[in-house]
Amino acid sequence: MRSHYCGQLNETLVDQEVALCGWVHRRRDHGGVIFLDLRDRDGIAQVVVDPDTPEAFANADRARNEFVLRIRGRIRLRPEGTQNPNMPTGMIEVLASDVEVLNTAATPPFQLDEHGKVGEETRLKHRYIDLRRPEMIDKLRLRSRITHSVRAYLESQGFLDIETPILTRATPEGARDYLVPSRTHPGEFFALPQSPQLFKQLLMVSGFDRYYQIAKCFRDEDLRADRQPEFTQIDLEASFVEESDIMSLTEDMIRQLFQDVLDVSLPAFPKMPYSEAMDRYGSDKPDLRIPLELIDVNDLMRDVDFKVFSGPAKADDGRVAALKVTGGAKLSRKEIDAYTDFVNIYGAKGLAWIKVNERAKGIEGLQSPIVKFMEGIIESLLDRVGAEDGDIIFFGADKARIVNEALGALRVKLGEDLDLYTQEWAPLWVVDFPMFEADDAGRLAALHHPFTAPSSSPEAFKADPANALSRAYDMVLNGTELGGGSIRIHDQAMQRAVFEVLGIGEEEAEEKFGFLLDALRFGAPPHGGLAFGLDRLVMLMSGAKTIREVIAFPKTQSAACLMTDAPGEVSADQLKELNIRLRQKAQQGGNGEA
Amino acid sequence: MRSHYCGQLNETLVDQEVALCGWVHRRRDHGGVIFLDLRDRDGIAQVVVDPDTPEAFANADRARNEFVLRIRGRIRLRPEGTQNPNMPTGMIEVLASDVEVLNTAATPPFQLDEHGKVGEETRLKHRYIDLRRPEMIDKLRLRSRITHSVRAYLESQGFLDIETPILTRATPEGARDYLVPSRTHPGEFFALPQSPQLFKQLLMVSGFDRYYQIAKCFRDEDLRADRQPEFTQIDLEASFVEESDIMSLTEDMIRQLFQDVLDVSLPAFPKMPYSEAMDRYGSDKPDLRIPLELIDVNDLMRDVDFKVFSGPAKADDGRVAALKVTGGAKLSRKEIDAYTDFVNIYGAKGLAWIKVNERAKGIEGLQSPIVKFMEGIIESLLDRVGAEDGDIIFFGADKARIVNEALGALRVKLGEDLDLYTQEWAPLWVVDFPMFEADDAGRLAALHHPFTAPSSSPEAFKADPANALSRAYDMVLNGTELGGGSIRIHDQAMQRAVFEVLGIGEEEAEEKFGFLLDALRFGAPPHGGLAFGLDRLVMLMSGAKTIREVIAFPKTQSAACLMTDAPGEVSADQLKELNIRLRQKAQQGGNGEA
Repeated sequence: MRSHYCGQLNETLVDQEVALCGWVHRRRDHGGVIFLDLRDRDGIAQVVVDPDTPEAFANADRARNEFVLRIRGRIRLRPEGTQNPNMPTGMIEVLASDVEVLNTAATPPFQLDEHGKVGEETRLKHRYIDLRRPEMIDKLRLRSRITHSVRAYLESQGFLDIETPILTRATPEGARDYLVPSRTHPGEFFALPQSPQLFKQLLMVSGFDRYYQIAKCFRDEDLRADRQPEFTQIDLEASFVEESDIMSLTEDMIRQLFQDVLDVSLPAFPKMPYSEAMDRYGSDKPDLRIPLELIDVNDLMRDVDFKVFSGPAKADDGRVAALKVTGGAKLSRKEIDAYTDFVNIYGAKGLAWIKVNERAKGIEGLQSPIVKFMEGIIESLLDRVGAEDGDIIFFGADKARIVNEALGALRVKLGEDLDLYTQEWAPLWVVDFPMFEADDAGRLAALHHPFTAPSSSPEAFKADPANALSRAYDMVLNGTELGGGSIRIHDQAMQRAVFEVLGIGEEEAEEKFGFLLDALRFGAPPHGGLAFGLDRLVMLMSGAKTIREVIAFPKTQSAACLMTDAPGEVSADQLKELNIRLRQKAQQGGNGEA
Repeated sequence: MRSHYCGQLNETLVDQEVALCGWVHRRRDHGGVIFLDLRDRDGIAQVVVDPDTPEAFANADRARNEFVLRIRGRIRLRPEGTQNPNMPTGMIEVLASDVEVLNTAATPPFQLDEHGKVGEETRLKHRYIDLRRPEMIDKLRLRSRITHSVRAYLESQGFLDIETPILTRATPEGARDYLVPSRTHPGEFFALPQSPQLFKQLLMVSGFDRYYQIAKCFRDEDLRADRQPEFTQIDLEASFVEESDIMSLTEDMIRQLFQDVLDVSLPAFPKMPYSEAMDRYGSDKPDLRIPLELIDVNDLMRDVDFKVFSGPAKADDGRVAALKVTGGAKLSRKEIDAYTDFVNIYGAKGLAWIKVNERAKGIEGLQSPIVKFMEGIIESLLDRVGAEDGDIIFFGADKARIVNEALGALRVKLGEDLDLYTQEWAPLWVVDFPMFEADDAGRLAALHHPFTAPSSSPEAFKADPANALSRAYDMVLNGTELGGGSIRIHDQAMQRAVFEVLGIGEEEAEEKFGFLLDALRFGAPPHGGLAFGLDRLVMLMSGAKTIREVIAFPKTQSAACLMTDAPGEVSADQLKELNIRLRQKAQQGGNGEA
């Protein structure tokens, strides 16, 4: 029905007859002539309909925004002075010989170029209209190009695309599962997978050697920040490999992806141990575009006459760190108060600071509520952080975890606010993670997942599991974790040992992961892999602000689809067939948000 | 860790040092030397370990079947007379210098080359072992190559890969939905999609123009025959198209797929109207490899003195048809009885037949229980079916539906039993389907789905909906429906008219499909598409006997996974969070199969 997409038209086609199909983006009458901006997925072309073609004119005349038209006509250069150089098709226009109305359109709930005037709710309810915006089409097109590039790379490396089940058993990531009642097994439930982790390990045991899948995963979490109940992973696993094999393969994949899709050649990926990342950036996914660093001052603060500092400085789990901001002395009291409120969010009780006005003047040259306590150590402190006139130094003093979270977040916020970015893309690998992290009760939990191999020998591991490091690796880009993975445990005894440390008893292990433990007995190869969060990757690459922008039909924070109005109520018969019934209070609860 | 896959080794590599990783497929001691068949995903290589390398020998000596080894050694030609031409690597062997045991293996529940001796249940329970069989690895590798070829083709045609939701609202295919209780919307449920149908239509309304997805779909049906609760569709949709656009595109895609993957060039795809398919083959997915056809004899049978024939011949909804099998006179009475039992399954009350021994002799030359009733018409009958000496003629006489089903099935069975196939691949398009089929109560149901466009004008459609044809098309290969699709309704009024015929009232339409009807109001383009069943396609192309063979982790007929033991019981707390509880009888019912 069409000869070209609108966006493809240009000067080289002048005098050609073309057929276009698309939507009326804008319509203007000007000097008895009708101008239609016709839009399709590739762009917008200006169509001119004049009264000499009465039938075409009549149809153009009844056309309104978002009408669906088929146009036939001849391409000509726009008259002098009417060209639009900002538009790919801005040098030409189509003189219509025929205008066919394929479908009419009621006035849309919002005009595309006025989408900003309506709330996201309205746009999500009429998602099929919001998706007409060129930016939205471009984002999903980019997503398609990204998966294409990733598939091409992995298949060139011998990875087989293998599907794993969606209706399965609870998986071990530990988030809340979505459940699916079974009709044929009354009282039993499937779980939707939080990842294909166990299946891909079993595929390695089967000898598939190199597996990948762009896989839907599901987590029934309260959607803080920017999460979706269903999300997509680029999931891969390989056998007879070590960390370096997976890391160089996936680094190469991402490097090629950025080249293919954004024409960006990424810098080298430095490797940074987890401990260093926490010490210098207070985060296990540091944004290396920002030149600020946390600097330890525990030793200096041990004996100052200021409990807020000396206390944490002396405590085993305490930390006192400084964050120097070059030129930060110009920050107003109001701004500093705002940053104080900001670090409160992360549990910091306050935000001490020193402005360095004139270092030469010593104490007098400094401005600070706390400097009076620092007399003895002030010079060493200023030297330690390399303070110069015009700088400000912020301090965090508390449990190490809180200091890291608070100053780590402050570091990123200052980077944004003061636009301190030194580069556009800053990737890195974070390695040498601890196997476990202790909760406040001292109970150990897996930092990645319980199938991650420790880097120590079985003996060394059993001797001191709490301090064992793992063979895990995370790929981080601009302060976002793009993906994480590890070499897995392929030895059944080691797997049991790890379960034991996690307090997963024999019985529970058998019940939950029996089939994996079995598989490990029957000849499991050494193997490892990695999983990337596709939505987040597309978001970064497209410059989107939320992952909702890079998902065709996303859900709201309360896990609902405003367009289809899902979830919805179902008939009593359906529930009966599934051998379930609603709880009383639920039926009263009705449609409430949790 | 490896330099080559086992299957890659051949004479050209003689004298090279190689490193192999894989599983002990077989182990033999012969003249003080150990022979290991080492297996990986690409094949099997023979490894020789002799006592001159004591360490290697000791490790080879403790190796058992399915141990995981890393071997280093040198490739050499096998000695005269020990070569195995049936094996790709049969001309060479690897003389091991080093044998490393990467993992041991307990004696597997079955030996790979003895898998036939254990039931499918055992193999499904230990799927990760069954998947080690080279045939299984090859089938899943073929599946991966098929999806690769399909993606490459569709992307070359400008189709964008777009993901649609898994957690959504009940879709209109009318099969039973899998439901997912919502935690954040108490008392409400998501449904897993039976297809992305509505979403892909909305993407067309958004202007994506060409969409595809290799999509997981879900149907909670009783798994008769060869179905799975979750299955995979190659799903596509395009805008501003007509039947011929989609049909030639997808025919081209399948043709290229067979060329790429099987090096088969498919014959042309004939187009056959639904009515012709039913008349000649008694099926809307005829297997054209079989030269047999149903031949109408209603007119001849109207007046015979044999109610079994004359009744249906005279009835409006009756049919009397003949199926002539060349050379079938040799069928024994026993065989004919077996075919009679076979047609019973399809509701036929019997299977009349005539053997043509010597046509020249007239009646005497025929052998048949019913020939005595045919006196008057026998010659016309024999002429009609073109009977020759040695043929047998079977008859079906009943309601047309029953005759078609019974003789249609018999036709296929005879084709198999007597190996009448005239070609390996017989594709075709079935077109001109009725919009609706009436159930016995005369209620009309959509033959495809309620969004399929009728081929008649709105007026003509409303005048006589019951006899309207649709703009649907099915691609059939070797008697299997590979895929089906249609041009969709893009006019809201027509959509409402179809809902009305289907007895879907305004309110129900709004409640179920309101968002689609809305979308059709805001500028929907003409559009259509098609969906292929990937599992069935892979099954056909790989020569598998069930779709379970081409799915990595399939479910049983009762929709259970024997390996992970899914579905399973969940905690009371989980149910409570989801605002549901089990019905009393369910809790008693326990693990029963429905």
